[in-house]
Amino acid sequence: MIEVGQNSYGKSAIRLVKVDRDGDAHRVRDLTIDIALVGDFAASYSAGDNTGVIATDTMKNTAYALAGEHLTGAIEDFGLALGRHFLGEPQVDRATISIREVAWQPIGSSPDAFTRDGSSARTARVAVGRDEIVIRAGIAGLAVMKTANSAFAGFPRDRFTTLQETDDRIMATAVTADWRYADGAARDFDNCYAGVRTTFLSVFADHHSESVQHSIWVIGQAILERHPEVAEVSMSLPNLHHWTVDLSPFGIENDRQVYVSTTEPHGLIEATIRRSDLG
Amino acid sequence: MIEVGQNSYGKSAIRLVKVDRDGDAHRVRDLTIDIALVGDFAASYSAGDNTGVIATDTMKNTAYALAGEHLTGAIEDFGLALGRHFLGEPQVDRATISIREVAWQPIGSSPDAFTRDGSSARTARVAVGRDEIVIRAGIAGLAVMKTANSAFAGFPRDRFTTLQETDDRIMATAVTADWRYADGAARDFDNCYAGVRTTFLSVFADHHSESVQHSIWVIGQAILERHPEVAEVSMSLPNLHHWTVDLSPFGIENDRQVYVSTTEPHGLIEATIRRSDLG
Amino acid sequence: MIEVGQNSYGKSAIRLVKVDRDGDAHRVRDLTIDIALVGDFAASYSAGDNTGVIATDTMKNTAYALAGEHLTGAIEDFGLALGRHFLGEPQVDRATISIREVAWQPIGSSPDAFTRDGSSARTARVAVGRDEIVIRAGIAGLAVMKTANSAFAGFPRDRFTTLQETDDRIMATAVTADWRYADGAARDFDNCYAGVRTTFLSVFADHHSESVQHSIWVIGQAILERHPEVAEVSMSLPNLHHWTVDLSPFGIENDRQVYVSTTEPHGLIEATIRRSDLG
Amino acid sequence: MIEVGQNSYGKSAIRLVKVDRDGDAHRVRDLTIDIALVGDFAASYSAGDNTGVIATDTMKNTAYALAGEHLTGAIEDFGLALGRHFLGEPQVDRATISIREVAWQPIGSSPDAFTRDGSSARTARVAVGRDEIVIRAGIAGLAVMKTANSAFAGFPRDRFTTLQETDDRIMATAVTADWRYADGAARDFDNCYAGVRTTFLSVFADHHSESVQHSIWVIGQAILERHPEVAEVSMSLPNLHHWTVDLSPFGIENDRQVYVSTTEPHGLIEATIRRSDLG
Repeated sequence: MIEVGQNSYGKSAIRLVKVDRDGDAHRVRDLTIDIALVGDFAASYSAGDNTGVIATDTMKNTAYALAGEHLTGAIEDFGLALGRHFLGEPQVDRATISIREVAWQPIGSSPDAFTRDGSSARTARVAVGRDEIVIRAGIAGLAVMKTANSAFAGFPRDRFTTLQETDDRIMATAVTADWRYADGAARDFDNCYAGVRTTFLSVFADHHSESVQHSIWVIGQAILERHPEVAEVSMSLPNLHHWTVDLSPFGIENDRQVYVSTTEPHGLIEATIRRSDLG
Repeated sequence: MIEVGQNSYGKSAIRLVKVDRDGDAHRVRDLTIDIALVGDFAASYSAGDNTGVIATDTMKNTAYALAGEHLTGAIEDFGLALGRHFLGEPQVDRATISIREVAWQPIGSSPDAFTRDGSSARTARVAVGRDEIVIRAGIAGLAVMKTANSAFAGFPRDRFTTLQETDDRIMATAVTADWRYADGAARDFDNCYAGVRTTFLSVFADHHSESVQHSIWVIGQAILERHPEVAEVSMSLPNLHHWTVDLSPFGIENDRQVYVSTTEPHGLIEATIRRSDLG
Repeated sequence: MIEVGQNSYGKSAIRLVKVDRDGDAHRVRDLTIDIALVGDFAASYSAGDNTGVIATDTMKNTAYALAGEHLTGAIEDFGLALGRHFLGEPQVDRATISIREVAWQPIGSSPDAFTRDGSSARTARVAVGRDEIVIRAGIAGLAVMKTANSAFAGFPRDRFTTLQETDDRIMATAVTADWRYADGAARDFDNCYAGVRTTFLSVFADHHSESVQHSIWVIGQAILERHPEVAEVSMSLPNLHHWTVDLSPFGIENDRQVYVSTTEPHGLIEATIRRSDLG
Repeated sequence: MIEVGQNSYGKSAIRLVKVDRDGDAHRVRDLTIDIALVGDFAASYSAGDNTGVIATDTMKNTAYALAGEHLTGAIEDFGLALGRHFLGEPQVDRATISIREVAWQPIGSSPDAFTRDGSSARTARVAVGRDEIVIRAGIAGLAVMKTANSAFAGFPRDRFTTLQETDDRIMATAVTADWRYADGAARDFDNCYAGVRTTFLSVFADHHSESVQHSIWVIGQAILERHPEVAEVSMSLPNLHHWTVDLSPFGIENDRQVYVSTTEPHGLIEATIRRSDLG
């Protein structure tokens, strides 16, 4: 017997820009939206029966249509509105709305000219189910570097180990992090996001790191301690190695000045820091 | 109380080319390898204790060092060798080796000149645990298109639905598919891969599609029926829309000839087809 | 005094798929088109005067509208039709049409299912001027490798030279090549393209290379000798280094078996091989 | 007779990070360098003679070796040092050094932690020849948008024109601009760059645009007027269309609020604004 297992479908990469022209200065919102539905869709696979299949084209139209009324605040709130809309159809059990927003900053004091802040994106993933709503917020593509207070030593050495221990290396990574809000805890999503982001950056800057793993712990612990609305935080951090260039063949000393930065291969450290069940 | 939850670490994007020079003609293997370990690593996070942390640099060295002896056949076998190596350390509970291989074809009858087949990649993901080994094989980046026998009709219409029903559309997608081999079932991984790939393509070509969902079912069902070594198959298929261009303003008829091909937004259909538990 | 210097404008990345349904089997054409106009457009800059500015949106429409009638053979011919169309406006001095085509191959004997050949693209650049038409054809993204018959030695050594001489290295590159057809020489562009591509690959496979520069010469010379319709050929070849991994620390011999393939940094060798003026 | 025409060779994508640790706070420089040489290299092609071929590996080593002493100020100065070094070999006629720098900003008041400013890159292209040095500086990847004061009207209408005239559209682009410094005019390259960038942004924000062409003129004219050290400025501006979504089928008014942002196809406007010969 053959059957349909886990499945979802939807529309991805919906590119939506909204210009709020109400105030003295315009405000630009720049979103990329993915919509995915889970529910009673097995017949669309096994019988080619589209009776319940909300067209992904309709999902796209819905995102644009609801943006006027519902994209007035945080992307989490817009995600909730979209998710609830799709739950209006009985065959849908869960609608997951993922949104990536990039910021546009005014040029000087101009009311209507902007530059895009390409330094990172804000993300949200809102899963609206029949019995539960899960809201995650996050940061994507934030490149950060420590030029001091980063070590890696004390690791085991086997036949294939050539890496030297170091108490002073560059640590560089491009942050993908997201966190789940405790049920009912967060309502001012813009403030929550800004707070967690600030904590991430300040702890990244201030701590002494024994490894990328250790940094994840120190930062994650601080986020949970300072932000009670956060139930858990997950990070996926590539270790983008910066190797000190050996200039000794040229009679040149290189005391942690000149590095080659690399992307392949890279370490990849992924972990969730959470409140323990007994916490 | 705050604790470390799910976590893994490793080295990604290890780029390895091996040239087998033993026969009359060379053979080129071109692999990109990701290694990820799960195990007793909580102290590396919460205490900055690297005692058990196999350096990711050592992982990279290990991949190159073992390639001579162990990369002689299928990437699944190389993945198994790498995974078992890392299980040699007691703190490791599971080593997951993901490999992506691109094929190089000889130019004519040349023994030592090659072109890369950029049409798709072969993938493997081997998870070697203490009690269980899970082997998945797959295809990535295979672009396929049907210019007939593809419909999409009978879907519900609501306030936001503008898509017209059609019994003749282009279906185009870029295939990411992978399948899990039943325990102990597959040992000639090259043959298994070739067989599943052939089934995928031939059923894709031959079936009449009511939707991308329906195509996933028809193809997945055929794979399971024809390949008993396959326990389940998962597909992630973007629906890369090709819209018929409206040339009527120019007095030109366009009867399914000229299309604009698009990538944003795109549908995304993901499902697993499996043998039922009672099967 | 400030003035407008060199300038051009147009539409890029026009994505067009055409399905020819006339025969027993369909044929898929998959083009990406750039259109650029040069002419009497200075006033559109310095006076904001759009009187002569053919909208780039109109260019896009024109590409789709002319595809039915004019995209029946080689992309060079379609480029000529498009270019001549735009020369119909007096303010246009030169229309340059650049087209990139990727091939779709039938799956088995299917008349209406295809896989995309991702191994390379065919390119054309047709510049239609008032007094002159220049037609270039080319290959893009063709990855090739030699595992023997490639050396690099005899180069000068200075204070900063550490590279060892070698008489046996891997040479790998991703070919961007294009060639100009002599005036009036080529009319069967499909055949010409196939011929030059075959020459490229066979000479790449057969020659002994002293360097990438030397390979460009050997291949370019052969193209000019065998294809009288070609006036000159230009190549831009990255040298994608494959470094032999030093496995001696692990007590493993690595006699040109295991390599790390790299993309950053890479050599870049660019040259035109041409018939001399006295030729 | 067949001969070598225009040619150059070098090393591209040299990734160099330098940390200046001298002051109280560190400073991070993050460069990607391309080196290309032109000169007496024909024999390396036609005779496979490497006697004069400075290995591209040596070029890479040289970039790292000279960074300690010479990368202390503007990238233009480092480019000059590199270019002059290669002119030390008699077979070299011209060395062109292209550098792309991305900025890292301190996190708060931290002396040793940084975030990368991903919003744009600074570029320089220094061509050091036997008789002439040409220095160009530029901006790459700067995304900007105007939500008012942008029109496009008065363009000609032909059979294939469907675009409506508008006096209020979004203009969005990703700026690639560079400018040539007049001989001997610029010596404080950091200040010059900052000044031109500021002019670009402020004029972009303040002017009323009749078209992308017109904007290039207005901005370019201002740069030349305000910065006497600039001899000419070139821009390559994609017109990244933002189309107003038609929400009228859903009974929703959309008065320049909700847009779909697109990248394919896009307009592409390229021009040089210069001082006239009589200027």
